[in-house]
Amino acid sequence: MASLVFFYSPGACSLAVHAALRQTQADFEAVRVDLREKQQLAPDYLRLNPQARVPTLSVDGRALVEVVAIADYLDRCFPQAALLPTDDFARAQDMAAIQRLSSDIHPLYRALWRSGWFADDPAAHDTLKSTATRRLREFHGELEQRLAEGSWGQGAPEGFLAFYTGVFLRWSAAVDPQGLGPECEALRTRMAAHPAMAGALAAEGIRLDSLERLTG
Amino acid sequence: MASLVFFYSPGACSLAVHAALRQTQADFEAVRVDLREKQQLAPDYLRLNPQARVPTLSVDGRALVEVVAIADYLDRCFPQAALLPTDDFARAQDMAAIQRLSSDIHPLYRALWRSGWFADDPAAHDTLKSTATRRLREFHGELEQRLAEGSWGQGAPEGFLAFYTGVFLRWSAAVDPQGLGPECEALRTRMAAHPAMAGALAAEGIRLDSLERLTG
Ligand SMILES: N[C@@H](CCC(=O)N[C@@H](CS)C(=O)NCC(=O)O)C(=O)O
Ligand SMILES: N[C@@H](CCC(=O)N[C@@H](CS)C(=O)NCC(=O)O)C(=O)O
Repeated sequence: MASLVFFYSPGACSLAVHAALRQTQADFEAVRVDLREKQQLAPDYLRLNPQARVPTLSVDGRALVEVVAIADYLDRCFPQAALLPTDDFARAQDMAAIQRLSSDIHPLYRALWRSGWFADDPAAHDTLKSTATRRLREFHGELEQRLAEGSWGQGAPEGFLAFYTGVFLRWSAAVDPQGLGPECEALRTRMAAHPAMAGALAAEGIRLDSLERLTG
Repeated sequence: MASLVFFYSPGACSLAVHAALRQTQADFEAVRVDLREKQQLAPDYLRLNPQARVPTLSVDGRALVEVVAIADYLDRCFPQAALLPTDDFARAQDMAAIQRLSSDIHPLYRALWRSGWFADDPAAHDTLKSTATRRLREFHGELEQRLAEGSWGQGAPEGFLAFYTGVFLRWSAAVDPQGLGPECEALRTRMAAHPAMAGALAAEGIRLDSLERLTG
């Protein structure tokens, strides 16, 4: 098997990949790139990931970036880890939910936490933050409903979608600090106890029910 | 094979799926959901896609959403269409570039064209638009360089990544109306002549080198 080196920041979206890697039971080296300390801007890391983001997975020295691409890659290399459903349509439903998080929900956290990405003028940051907060709260209502009706992905209840959703459940404390609905909280509890996710959380030194670090 | 109904708006990101569907040579029915006329808000369409977005692919009456999930699904169902590379690592590299477009670049067009998504206060829209314009121009420089060095995906030079990149090359006229660098323009020209993309463009009544419709 290839030599795998995984670059992450505690509590960032890389946490989902961290759990997935543990789930594969492959050997990998985990390297901390602390966003709080701006380690993503170190020249060595920029050579690997010019976007200065986490995660990066180095596969025999070749860098692979983007959470969704890495998830798809790990699923194909380690089918026994069941990161995604095997049925084509069920897999696509999981991918659609993963994609929703990546392309729609993640940018709202970016607007909330790194408002300067979207607006050079700091005078605009308050409305960016309040609009993102409102939309993220709406999303939590939708997620609660979709978990209840079983339409948040299909199959693979402990697979990549669950890990990735776990990251966003953790982040949710930034906009819904009093907690979420029962379905969301049940998923959070299940994920916190899941061996692969629990191992990743311990390695990163964080918890799923506390947002002591903001690193989205 | 399943019965496929494809919902698109002319020139929207659904164009990449439209080209991919033609590339599979599968039978499909194409249904126009004109964003300019707010047809995505029709109750029948909202039942299919509560997010009120295009594209949606209905597979035997079950809705599949999100460009990347649909691309992955079509690639798995129609391997002979070569939408994605078959080698796992090369496939992941294509997925990473597709993902970059979907999660990073598409939201910048959203900030440009639908600033209200990110900021309730219209006073913030000017800085959103100018910041997005600056970042998109920077991206065009990066894309030019990556196409030149062959690092914008791997393999499948006429596959889904090329189709999806074609959509963004078309949209680029909104921020770089004088055209892009030679590599980007060569890709645009190749895509405009590609049978699957040319067929999709004709069916949608648009061109790849003109942005007579803004529908991002
Ligand atoms: N689309 C990328 C997004 C990656 C991303 O934005 N990562 C964040 C952490 S959650 C990051 O590295 N931010 C650092 C920064 O923006 O400076 C992916 O899914 O991998
Ligand atoms: N992440 C979604 C984004 C879909 C999306 O934003 N589509 C745009 C057209 S390019 C749309 O339908 N916009 C309508 C709206 O926002 O009202 C995907 O990749 O399918």
